[in-house]
Amino acid sequence: MDKIRVSLLGSTGMVGQKMIKLLATHPFLELTKVSASPSKIGRKYQEAVKWVEGGEIPESVRDLRIVSTNPEDHKDVDVVLSALPNELAEDVELKLVREGKVVVSNASPFRMDPDVPLINPEINWEHLELLKTQRSKRGWKGLLVKNPNCTASILSMPFKYILKNLKMDKVIITTLQAVSGAGYNGLSFMSIENNVIPYIKGEEEKIPKEMNKMLGSLKEDSIVPAGIDATVTSTRVPTKVGHMGVVNVITEEGKVEEIKKALSSFRSLPQERGLPTAPAKPIVLHEAEDRPQPEIDLKTGNGMEVHVGRFRFENGVLRFVVLGDNLVRGAAGITILTVELMKELGYI
Amino acid sequence: MDKIRVSLLGSTGMVGQKMIKLLATHPFLELTKVSASPSKIGRKYQEAVKWVEGGEIPESVRDLRIVSTNPEDHKDVDVVLSALPNELAEDVELKLVREGKVVVSNASPFRMDPDVPLINPEINWEHLELLKTQRSKRGWKGLLVKNPNCTASILSMPFKYILKNLKMDKVIITTLQAVSGAGYNGLSFMSIENNVIPYIKGEEEKIPKEMNKMLGSLKEDSIVPAGIDATVTSTRVPTKVGHMGVVNVITEEGKVEEIKKALSSFRSLPQERGLPTAPAKPIVLHEAEDRPQPEIDLKTGNGMEVHVGRFRFENGVLRFVVLGDNLVRGAAGITILTVELMKELGYI
Amino acid sequence: MDKIRVSLLGSTGMVGQKMIKLLATHPFLELTKVSASPSKIGRKYQEAVKWVEGGEIPESVRDLRIVSTNPEDHKDVDVVLSALPNELAEDVELKLVREGKVVVSNASPFRMDPDVPLINPEINWEHLELLKTQRSKRGWKGLLVKNPNCTASILSMPFKYILKNLKMDKVIITTLQAVSGAGYNGLSFMSIENNVIPYIKGEEEKIPKEMNKMLGSLKEDSIVPAGIDATVTSTRVPTKVGHMGVVNVITEEGKVEEIKKALSSFRSLPQERGLPTAPAKPIVLHEAEDRPQPEIDLKTGNGMEVHVGRFRFENGVLRFVVLGDNLVRGAAGITILTVELMKELGYI
Amino acid sequence: MDKIRVSLLGSTGMVGQKMIKLLATHPFLELTKVSASPSKIGRKYQEAVKWVEGGEIPESVRDLRIVSTNPEDHKDVDVVLSALPNELAEDVELKLVREGKVVVSNASPFRMDPDVPLINPEINWEHLELLKTQRSKRGWKGLLVKNPNCTASILSMPFKYILKNLKMDKVIITTLQAVSGAGYNGLSFMSIENNVIPYIKGEEEKIPKEMNKMLGSLKEDSIVPAGIDATVTSTRVPTKVGHMGVVNVITEEGKVEEIKKALSSFRSLPQERGLPTAPAKPIVLHEAEDRPQPEIDLKTGNGMEVHVGRFRFENGVLRFVVLGDNLVRGAAGITILTVELMKELGYI
Repeated sequence: MDKIRVSLLGSTGMVGQKMIKLLATHPFLELTKVSASPSKIGRKYQEAVKWVEGGEIPESVRDLRIVSTNPEDHKDVDVVLSALPNELAEDVELKLVREGKVVVSNASPFRMDPDVPLINPEINWEHLELLKTQRSKRGWKGLLVKNPNCTASILSMPFKYILKNLKMDKVIITTLQAVSGAGYNGLSFMSIENNVIPYIKGEEEKIPKEMNKMLGSLKEDSIVPAGIDATVTSTRVPTKVGHMGVVNVITEEGKVEEIKKALSSFRSLPQERGLPTAPAKPIVLHEAEDRPQPEIDLKTGNGMEVHVGRFRFENGVLRFVVLGDNLVRGAAGITILTVELMKELGYI
Repeated sequence: MDKIRVSLLGSTGMVGQKMIKLLATHPFLELTKVSASPSKIGRKYQEAVKWVEGGEIPESVRDLRIVSTNPEDHKDVDVVLSALPNELAEDVELKLVREGKVVVSNASPFRMDPDVPLINPEINWEHLELLKTQRSKRGWKGLLVKNPNCTASILSMPFKYILKNLKMDKVIITTLQAVSGAGYNGLSFMSIENNVIPYIKGEEEKIPKEMNKMLGSLKEDSIVPAGIDATVTSTRVPTKVGHMGVVNVITEEGKVEEIKKALSSFRSLPQERGLPTAPAKPIVLHEAEDRPQPEIDLKTGNGMEVHVGRFRFENGVLRFVVLGDNLVRGAAGITILTVELMKELGYI
Repeated sequence: MDKIRVSLLGSTGMVGQKMIKLLATHPFLELTKVSASPSKIGRKYQEAVKWVEGGEIPESVRDLRIVSTNPEDHKDVDVVLSALPNELAEDVELKLVREGKVVVSNASPFRMDPDVPLINPEINWEHLELLKTQRSKRGWKGLLVKNPNCTASILSMPFKYILKNLKMDKVIITTLQAVSGAGYNGLSFMSIENNVIPYIKGEEEKIPKEMNKMLGSLKEDSIVPAGIDATVTSTRVPTKVGHMGVVNVITEEGKVEEIKKALSSFRSLPQERGLPTAPAKPIVLHEAEDRPQPEIDLKTGNGMEVHVGRFRFENGVLRFVVLGDNLVRGAAGITILTVELMKELGYI
Repeated sequence: MDKIRVSLLGSTGMVGQKMIKLLATHPFLELTKVSASPSKIGRKYQEAVKWVEGGEIPESVRDLRIVSTNPEDHKDVDVVLSALPNELAEDVELKLVREGKVVVSNASPFRMDPDVPLINPEINWEHLELLKTQRSKRGWKGLLVKNPNCTASILSMPFKYILKNLKMDKVIITTLQAVSGAGYNGLSFMSIENNVIPYIKGEEEKIPKEMNKMLGSLKEDSIVPAGIDATVTSTRVPTKVGHMGVVNVITEEGKVEEIKKALSSFRSLPQERGLPTAPAKPIVLHEAEDRPQPEIDLKTGNGMEVHVGRFRFENGVLRFVVLGDNLVRGAAGITILTVELMKELGYI
């Protein structure tokens, strides 16, 4: 099989490095171009990057020369992956898509556009059909596919089943999010060590909106949002990796055992088709009362698992805890799995 | 004025040390006896303690000899303060009360007994009246007064006003609690550093029960619980001091501005009477969207303030964040303020 | 007594905030002007600052309007304190001194200039005499006095006695420095949490040079360096405040008991004259084998103490550990004590 | 090839868990028995352990029943690995060796006994010859081999070359050691978070003694110690894994480039024979001035590498920094590599 050639925007950032690591041993994706900020163009990757991912820079990437984000620098690749900062992504990605590139992106612009699929592969692979609308409505020669906000990626996983099987009134969520979610230099040690900051700019609005789009249903040429009435409070805690959500669903019936069983055996198209980055078990159920924990549970598997635990139904409230790796399920891994999915379904 | 002589059980623990510091400059409480575990009896305090409070051991305490918890060792004191571990408190405190001591205690046993006042001074000073019932029903020669669980002490503060002024349906709370809440040796560095543990044994039951007792109303010889329908999830985060609660109240009316104004100007008997350990402002309102934060806000005042912020009413949910010093408002300070209150009201 | 009016450059930084706190209750220094970066000029201090010092902004400063660093904005003050970043200090301070201001500064430029006193008050108050040379040699209308690098301030303290009383061959020092030494935003959480970085730019050269200048002797119009042959390795550890040095002196005689006794009773001019910011005991000796520790020992006193412990002489090596508060003894406090000293000695 | 059957003492501790992980995929060692404290005997491993290693418990071990440390419980194994706490090891190991078992142990008792090899495979594999003396002098039916203290294992690596090629006068070492070195429950969060403790019981004596034994030469039936005149100060820093040493060698010639080249290309018998747990490069040289760092460099390779950097020769002092994984090179991995070595050389 011919490999699919991909390029990577934002390749020297933390999420970019994670993608490079995941791509290094990929069976059919080949990273052939790396892009970074203008001052780094022309330098070898290993000289342009402050490598913090741990382990060594994969050999195949070390000597790649940094290219720009201009379409001409991405001519001979099949897919452009984007780990760009949100504030830079809009213009760059638009230009690439207009010039014919298939762009799969982690950045926030366009996520809520009606004809742009917002893909969490196990949850809404069928939303890729929106690309037909996108193609017909926009004058773009290429395609634009988005991945959700890191917390929304993780939190949405258990809801696919719950949404269909539980009559939910309100959903109240408190998140405890790791510092890497703000980027490598996002928070200073002095500001967050031994501290909790009960606020993360933008998260409380994005999370419910993106969850409702992902979990919505495709009706003709658009998505009908799922209608989950979620209220989110996002807090930053002094941990490096792993976003946790404490979820409370106001509901008449708890169905705890049924839900636990269903989540634990949850499989979707990526599992059925054996996509390389798809985790065998997308949702890992924990029965121990003090789990899941980032330091223990995120080291299992390839980082694409979402962990759930602490199920309890009492007094009209179903409570559970969700945990996932914000850099893998929440960013680098989900993008790569999306490309695998697009290939599997013939979009590339 | 004659000083009130107090003794302290559990004097070498973290809460005990905090009490010693607060008592060192107290205008009318004089610490004359310190008690600790049997192996330390007879040693000088400064030799028996691993002092971790910071600063130096107050001079008046350094050379006190550790005594036992037996009533004969507390004969010539007016009040016994207890910072005993929960598992030791029951027998020891009972014995002291039976033999005629006034015991004011932080430990959990007896907290929910109907004739034992559970005092958070600003909230329910009038519950001290239960002591009359206690005196008549129990054969005790002394008196037993309890202080609430550290998280309940902090969370209950804003509810006194809210309870009376808002029609609340459910209340959903997630707590982010500091490690000191488990005691100095409660959690190992390896278990909690860079981690979150979404569970604290016993907390999720204690918090709503104790809040409802504190906020309840005194009817004849017992307390009618407040009836707040609260669901709590308690998590442990890697910080040293400061318990935070994210509170969501399901309610039809938000009354955000009214509540903020009322909390910000909240005063109660301890303030009116100028009790020495009463904070001038028991509730500090923060308007900045990223506050309150433990590392910044707990250094203000004397540790007895409770900080609130992040008020929002949206879609039938009133959300706010509460933060307090678990060692002072949650333990050492509340006990001392309770003694001050009992003196003010003539109970000692 | 008339108060001395001071202005403060770099007033919104971490060291600036610390100075503001120390000045708030000062008996004879009155902060009347605060300066910060151009974008903040004209705003009220409380609106221009991200206050992280803990506690509240002192009332006397809250409403001061931020001024520039230009001499005309500092006309009616007696002394300008500088907590400027090193890279901005040179031009700004020079201009102020030329226009007649007395500048006492923490920033690194000019520290090693032969006619600029580098003052650690207890160590080398007599070096202020250099100001005569400075006045005569430079065409400055004002005066420039520098304070040393934070680590050098702390490490130099025990050497005043040791230098005179021990024949030292080499001195080998490893420092373990807190993150605040790099400024509030100096290191990201992701880069230093759970990590050690065995390098701090510039420190390994500055520390021995500045120690030798401070501990040197005034001969006519210049300083003869002390000649300590010190080799320094500086490491950054994940703590917030407190720089520690592990010192090994190659020497034939250890004189451990004699040195411990002398350091423990060390007093200097600031103590004799009762300067307000001078600690009663400039050097605190710890006999416990696991001390000094930043989390316990830096909370004692006013932050101007230097802690020493772990003395051992074995096999031709005298080893001890030194610890101090890098923001107080290492920066904000030493500057204020220097102004007090200059007033005491008639320089202002 | 028949597999070598091994049992493991102390299997539920942190080092025990690390060994289990390393053994799970081992080509010729098969873990057939796991032992733990008496209260756990008879339970399945997965029920007896609090698994903190990350990832899942290897399937082959999950259902093994915990056995005692008595020889009869280890009858059908070829080698007993010991990750016992130091205070329990002496009696247990002695009994096993007397009854004929080959014991390879991480625990400290017997390490300095003249006829007990203290093995760091790359450094002193030839010291296994001591086993002949051991066999003839002691009445033991089995064999006892020890691995060194974790810090000594790491620090000794670069010294094999340096010892032979540099005339060293004194060596001054400061270590910055991670909390895992004290065991999973060794230090509480409250005691070490945001702190440095400049003391670790026993380390400062063990490190130079063990280094000198490992680096010593085998003369007839005993080891002549290497004679390195090392002075060590051990500090505990708030990191989870990774012991660092700052090494200063007083020497007339620095030979920096020669040493860097030699260390970087260092290979020994374990590499030549391709032992499975031997790292390809036992010593990794870092040229970047801010390396090695635990959070970045210990994720490379299999944890058996020792990292060196910051070489500088100035003023009669050769300075460099050493870093290694205290749980792998310092404990679990070195034990397994020792067994591989013993098999290779025919001792088992």
